[in-house]
Amino acid sequence: MKLIKNFDMKNKTPKAVILLSGGLDSTTCLGIAKSQNFECYTLSLDYGQRHNFELKAAKKIAVYFNVKEHRVIKINIGELGGSALTDKNIAIPNYQDSNEIPVTYVPARNTIFLSIALGWAEILGADDIFIGVSAIDYSGYPDCRPEFIKAFQNLANLATKMGIKGNSIRINTPLINLSKAETIKLGQSLGIDYSETITCYQVDEQGRACGKCDSCVLRIKGFKEAGVIDPTQYQQFVS
Amino acid sequence: MKLIKNFDMKNKTPKAVILLSGGLDSTTCLGIAKSQNFECYTLSLDYGQRHNFELKAAKKIAVYFNVKEHRVIKINIGELGGSALTDKNIAIPNYQDSNEIPVTYVPARNTIFLSIALGWAEILGADDIFIGVSAIDYSGYPDCRPEFIKAFQNLANLATKMGIKGNSIRINTPLINLSKAETIKLGQSLGIDYSETITCYQVDEQGRACGKCDSCVLRIKGFKEAGVIDPTQYQQFVS
Repeated sequence: MKLIKNFDMKNKTPKAVILLSGGLDSTTCLGIAKSQNFECYTLSLDYGQRHNFELKAAKKIAVYFNVKEHRVIKINIGELGGSALTDKNIAIPNYQDSNEIPVTYVPARNTIFLSIALGWAEILGADDIFIGVSAIDYSGYPDCRPEFIKAFQNLANLATKMGIKGNSIRINTPLINLSKAETIKLGQSLGIDYSETITCYQVDEQGRACGKCDSCVLRIKGFKEAGVIDPTQYQQFVS
Repeated sequence: MKLIKNFDMKNKTPKAVILLSGGLDSTTCLGIAKSQNFECYTLSLDYGQRHNFELKAAKKIAVYFNVKEHRVIKINIGELGGSALTDKNIAIPNYQDSNEIPVTYVPARNTIFLSIALGWAEILGADDIFIGVSAIDYSGYPDCRPEFIKAFQNLANLATKMGIKGNSIRINTPLINLSKAETIKLGQSLGIDYSETITCYQVDEQGRACGKCDSCVLRIKGFKEAGVIDPTQYQQFVS
């Protein structure tokens, strides 16, 4: 049984901060938090990503899910460079089935995102943070692995006033052991409409996906394996 | 002996990222990193702090120490509220000798700052990060304690490509067991001029310190105990 420690006295609803990029995974995470009756606070990060079309998608999704509050935090880490996601001089590669971590890796991204979510969670009095990482069908980013999440949860409870006062902060990763197809099936069972979600690293100005980057290829494969019609708008026909 | 793993092939100098607020502690930290022959990259965070006069001080100090690069990262976490340091509706309290964590605590601040420093360190190929936290003569903030730092270092090595490739990231906290007086004495031995450093939470427009907040009182006490003339400009006479 889930132990609910922190709740608003008026409505007895526990609060959760959900990192919402506007993609398939984070949207599913929000659906899961909603289905678990959390009062949902969604957080998007505007970090100079070239695919910031996703920020618009996140806002629409937050409205659709009727979250309590949606916030966008701006942080100019993109200026530091080091990733194809923030540096327009580095091309987004097509999907490659390789063990190498691709150039789309943004150094320390999930550490930074979770830290900001932690700060907001403490302000709100929320014990729960949701992040849609998966260590299956992913790009090999180190900050998507269970050992990273465990270490962050340990840190969170040492870093904060609420942590040392005995509130136990949980980093919820409901998708961490799910394949993309399993995530999509789970989302379907929760009634999630994926047509508004943006996964692609290089959507065009109309919000259409490229169909070629890591992120697109994993998504296309996921819909196929799940036997669900892919509602994504692509720039060209994707078989 | 310090094991130097990561260096620039041209000059064989190891790199370090130093979190530089412009205050006494972080300036001493920079002095220490310099004395250890690191190529220094200083990082200031513009997070909506009311005392952002310190950002100007940090820039001057970075120039004085002839650092390789000084960066200011903007992040609007101040909008989330929750601290007297970012919310002008909460008054900065005068110093109180208490065990309670004061309202100047910024939720998850050092976690956020270290995360950003970690991202930049990875981009630069720097194994070392310096932060001027102290668990002596401090305000009881949870994210200044050795157990927090240890947990962050553990996280850093799981979170990053350089960490999992075997580079061992070190979070250096040379002041963690020093009293303010000991820090000042150490700084003096390194030839640091503290007149440009800003510690106060509510400096006025001329950059003069209030002499009453936690931060000022600990600084004043430190100079007195160290037997060093306090070069700080106060808004009024401080005995």
